[in-house]
Amino acid sequence: MTTQPLRFGLIGTGRIGQVHAASIAADPDTTLAWVCDPFVDGARAVSERFGGTVTDDAGEVFASGDVDAVLIASPTATHVDLIAAAIDAGVPALCEKPIDLDIARVDALLPAVRSSGVPVALGFNRRFDPAFASVRARVAAGEIGELEHLSIVSRDPAAPPAAYIAVSGGIFRDMTIHDFDMARFFLPDIVEVSAVGTTVFDAGAREHGDFDTAVTTLRAASGAIASIVNSRHSAIGYDQRLEAFGPDGVLQVANAPTSLVSLSTATVVEGRPPYQNFFLERYAEAYAAELREFVRLVRGEPSTSPTFEDGRAALLLADAAQRSATEHVAVTVDLS
Amino acid sequence: MTTQPLRFGLIGTGRIGQVHAASIAADPDTTLAWVCDPFVDGARAVSERFGGTVTDDAGEVFASGDVDAVLIASPTATHVDLIAAAIDAGVPALCEKPIDLDIARVDALLPAVRSSGVPVALGFNRRFDPAFASVRARVAAGEIGELEHLSIVSRDPAAPPAAYIAVSGGIFRDMTIHDFDMARFFLPDIVEVSAVGTTVFDAGAREHGDFDTAVTTLRAASGAIASIVNSRHSAIGYDQRLEAFGPDGVLQVANAPTSLVSLSTATVVEGRPPYQNFFLERYAEAYAAELREFVRLVRGEPSTSPTFEDGRAALLLADAAQRSATEHVAVTVDLS
Amino acid sequence: MTTQPLRFGLIGTGRIGQVHAASIAADPDTTLAWVCDPFVDGARAVSERFGGTVTDDAGEVFASGDVDAVLIASPTATHVDLIAAAIDAGVPALCEKPIDLDIARVDALLPAVRSSGVPVALGFNRRFDPAFASVRARVAAGEIGELEHLSIVSRDPAAPPAAYIAVSGGIFRDMTIHDFDMARFFLPDIVEVSAVGTTVFDAGAREHGDFDTAVTTLRAASGAIASIVNSRHSAIGYDQRLEAFGPDGVLQVANAPTSLVSLSTATVVEGRPPYQNFFLERYAEAYAAELREFVRLVRGEPSTSPTFEDGRAALLLADAAQRSATEHVAVTVDLS
Amino acid sequence: MTTQPLRFGLIGTGRIGQVHAASIAADPDTTLAWVCDPFVDGARAVSERFGGTVTDDAGEVFASGDVDAVLIASPTATHVDLIAAAIDAGVPALCEKPIDLDIARVDALLPAVRSSGVPVALGFNRRFDPAFASVRARVAAGEIGELEHLSIVSRDPAAPPAAYIAVSGGIFRDMTIHDFDMARFFLPDIVEVSAVGTTVFDAGAREHGDFDTAVTTLRAASGAIASIVNSRHSAIGYDQRLEAFGPDGVLQVANAPTSLVSLSTATVVEGRPPYQNFFLERYAEAYAAELREFVRLVRGEPSTSPTFEDGRAALLLADAAQRSATEHVAVTVDLS
Repeated sequence: MTTQPLRFGLIGTGRIGQVHAASIAADPDTTLAWVCDPFVDGARAVSERFGGTVTDDAGEVFASGDVDAVLIASPTATHVDLIAAAIDAGVPALCEKPIDLDIARVDALLPAVRSSGVPVALGFNRRFDPAFASVRARVAAGEIGELEHLSIVSRDPAAPPAAYIAVSGGIFRDMTIHDFDMARFFLPDIVEVSAVGTTVFDAGAREHGDFDTAVTTLRAASGAIASIVNSRHSAIGYDQRLEAFGPDGVLQVANAPTSLVSLSTATVVEGRPPYQNFFLERYAEAYAAELREFVRLVRGEPSTSPTFEDGRAALLLADAAQRSATEHVAVTVDLS
Repeated sequence: MTTQPLRFGLIGTGRIGQVHAASIAADPDTTLAWVCDPFVDGARAVSERFGGTVTDDAGEVFASGDVDAVLIASPTATHVDLIAAAIDAGVPALCEKPIDLDIARVDALLPAVRSSGVPVALGFNRRFDPAFASVRARVAAGEIGELEHLSIVSRDPAAPPAAYIAVSGGIFRDMTIHDFDMARFFLPDIVEVSAVGTTVFDAGAREHGDFDTAVTTLRAASGAIASIVNSRHSAIGYDQRLEAFGPDGVLQVANAPTSLVSLSTATVVEGRPPYQNFFLERYAEAYAAELREFVRLVRGEPSTSPTFEDGRAALLLADAAQRSATEHVAVTVDLS
Repeated sequence: MTTQPLRFGLIGTGRIGQVHAASIAADPDTTLAWVCDPFVDGARAVSERFGGTVTDDAGEVFASGDVDAVLIASPTATHVDLIAAAIDAGVPALCEKPIDLDIARVDALLPAVRSSGVPVALGFNRRFDPAFASVRARVAAGEIGELEHLSIVSRDPAAPPAAYIAVSGGIFRDMTIHDFDMARFFLPDIVEVSAVGTTVFDAGAREHGDFDTAVTTLRAASGAIASIVNSRHSAIGYDQRLEAFGPDGVLQVANAPTSLVSLSTATVVEGRPPYQNFFLERYAEAYAAELREFVRLVRGEPSTSPTFEDGRAALLLADAAQRSATEHVAVTVDLS
Repeated sequence: MTTQPLRFGLIGTGRIGQVHAASIAADPDTTLAWVCDPFVDGARAVSERFGGTVTDDAGEVFASGDVDAVLIASPTATHVDLIAAAIDAGVPALCEKPIDLDIARVDALLPAVRSSGVPVALGFNRRFDPAFASVRARVAAGEIGELEHLSIVSRDPAAPPAAYIAVSGGIFRDMTIHDFDMARFFLPDIVEVSAVGTTVFDAGAREHGDFDTAVTTLRAASGAIASIVNSRHSAIGYDQRLEAFGPDGVLQVANAPTSLVSLSTATVVEGRPPYQNFFLERYAEAYAAELREFVRLVRGEPSTSPTFEDGRAALLLADAAQRSATEHVAVTVDLS
């Protein structure tokens, strides 16, 4: 018996939408049936490379009757309505993070998501990175004993434009959101958030009252602590490290090298070329694995795709971090 | 012209006192003139190895007229009185950290220290570690641009006995105190402290209301942030790492290997033997350099020995961290 | 103007033939037009995955008129005749190494190759590995000064079956041949070969009078020396390292890790999972780049594809090494 | 019962003699009783720092009756006569390498050494390096299975003056001699030597018909192979690496770092300061351990001090390498 490839409708053809289009086209289990973007030239360009019928109207995708799933990669403000439309149409959805910048809108959608039975997954791609996934599996297997401290370093190569900062929801909702989910990948039950933010280099962040550098400390119900260090820039390339500490040892994820070559001279030994520059390279495998896992979810197979609730939990943590950094208090959270 | 070696009186012959006795004996610029401990057998044992007249009475040392400096390595509770006695006797003192567990006692002594003109230095040995000192010098030289984030990982190999915990003043005053000083080595002007503590493995800490694991975030007046991760235990040996992040790069201090040998097999490649076990090995060079710097201070030469004020600042930060971790708020500090 | 993809005839569908089939299918500039193997089921299996008309007769491929190039991945003994046939048909050929086990047959073909003008390239894939290519470029750019010593470590994960050893032509012609070409990639003008072979673990090698371990030293006309260390097995995975030493420094190529994760415990720190297992993983990028370079050659564009003469030179070095190891003398070679 | 420190006569106060003087003075089991050098100012300078009666006449040392052992660190040409004198006087001797540049003189002395019962040890200090000693012990313990290949890289930071080259006996007898002994530390029973030498950068070597770069391959009776790579210069500092390869894995000795600090920037990541510059730093611990082991030998305790025979074997290998490199043949040796 042959399984037909899942027919995807891609909504949103910006940078991350193009990544997903490539993944859908490359995976033998998926095909690109529809490509939708109000900026129809973007949709057309994607369609030319990867196939799919072009439209500027998401409603047409849902009404077409020939999509098995949608991948929502449009601007954040559209996510809630598109998920709602997907549920109405009975079409499973994989939605990029964050669900929304406003937890009230997320909460309003929650009952429908829960009761509908339509699969909704969140695009926390890093869970599918082989290194992070391996560390989590090894922690779960007891290699270092009970997790006591998780350290996440997450720095982007360069700050986004001020215009992006203006609508981003702030560093915690826009950037740390990935790290909150990563912390919950290891320690789902976070109970307290303490965050310190500062603005030391980025004029755009300063202009819009945002931080360019932040340190967040999360406490889990178990007593374990997670630390997250963020910066909007990093001279050495995309800085994505993780360290899990337990009574029996430490598991570490190093930055991804771009070469096996090192140079030693009279002044510096064992120097290597800079790390991978950004997420497209660093998480290429993760995006493909994320899609495969979502296919399993759609097919009713056992799946570990991050859920709508995971997306909501990450946003709750971001809100708490924003409040903590602003009011200089630790903030209790209830993710249940 | 030959300079006579400085004649030291060593007060306190426990573990750290013995380290200092060995340093004093090994340094051609210093000799051990007096060895003092109420537990006179300890003093006698040190004297037999490294020389010096034995006494159980510190007053005798100060009255002798034949010491050029004292090294105070006795229990914390005795430090303030011994520094006061040193000032009265006009004898320069190098005192182990912390000055005291009670900031009020430290503040009470402060005017006398300031007005006396007698050199008083604090034993923040890690400032003299070649690796940390090198990173600080390179940051100061601008190698990574303006410091934006400082990360300190500091874990002891194993938790002390419950009886020690009981009188230690808590993890922040007893253990993190070193890391507070290290943070101030890079960022002297700390203005806010946020700390999270937890007790996940150590029965002694639990019994005495202490934490065995702590994460502290410090904010400097410049906006830079320092993160400190502590644990009372570490399977991999003494875990002492530091990372300085700036716009132009990252300077890192790795853990100290015990061997140049690595083993690669079918299951693990490039595995190396565990790190140095504890501070006697890890900071052997630092203790010797600390002593040399203090000798310069005593001789009126330019010296970077940490001051009484440095000791007070570290204690203020520890107090703030204790309050932050207990009350779940960020605590403003004024170190001026 | 659009360039049509090159239509390839693949001759030989064993392990390496399948690698090339995948590369040809994946590269937008190439398509698989014919798949040929006397073991026609193998050809059929490849055709089903990657396309192409199936035949068991190479003559049919050349006669078809619809191939732009052939990729010769058949057994070594067939290479010379197939290259000759390609030249006769005016079809450019990319041939796997070695050209033949008998230098006389290679020399007999040489004039035809030279006079025909038909592009013939040799499959020395390692030249296209990003790490080795980068080191060569950096040496050429003068980063370490004039090359004085080149060190190559090349060990396969496990010895081949005795039946393979029997017809392999011996370790130098079968395995070191790649390393001879790599040495010539840096030092084309080798003038002397000294080799030491030994048989310490492999019953198959012993049975067929072959070595399982060999060390070869090459002297270049410039005076520079290249060292090659080979073994037919390696517990740690495919061991492929290179080091270029010059007056100003050292460029090193490390083994390829399979993960960014390391584990530190009380007994071993910074241990990582084993290296990539074998050439399919280690040289995946190299095979693709090798194909792209051959496409340039076929199209008459500037190309660095290894030539028939490179293939002949590597075989001359292998013959010299075999003689050196057997007769215990250094052997002079003339590669001009 | 207290053991009296061994009273040493030091003969030769050049660079290596001064190293030994410091070791003798620092070790509580040894004292410097006599310091001898025909260049009596050198002897005097050593005596002033480390004690001992000064003389320019080695005979006086042996006749004094108050030395328990001699350390021979004089020019190579004097070693044989001084060992003979030590044997005659019944005084144990630790002699620097090589014994002599002329194997005939060594052989002539051999019967006396063997029959005398007077302990004679050779200064192959590297056997006592903790890293090399650890690898040997771990190989012996079977961690990688039966040793199949040993790789030694040994490069000095800078070529010696031409005048030194002139009387050095050539690179194999002067420099590789250490590596021959290291090879025999792992594989005592070497049966064949193949060496390739070249002169690519050093005018002094060229002037005196010596090589500045050499690669030597040794075959052991077991079939195992040792490779030695030498250069008279190394931009990255003292290059002293070793790798032991067996069926179950690889043990490696890395170069000795001078700092725990690494720097990552936009152009180079994880760059570290250069390695230790030369043998005084790199082998400081080894020299002390070598002395302690010789003390055990003198006291009749079990000792692993390298023997006169070890010194002779290394010279035989050096002679064979010189012949191999000159005559372009593999040279059979009999070390029994």
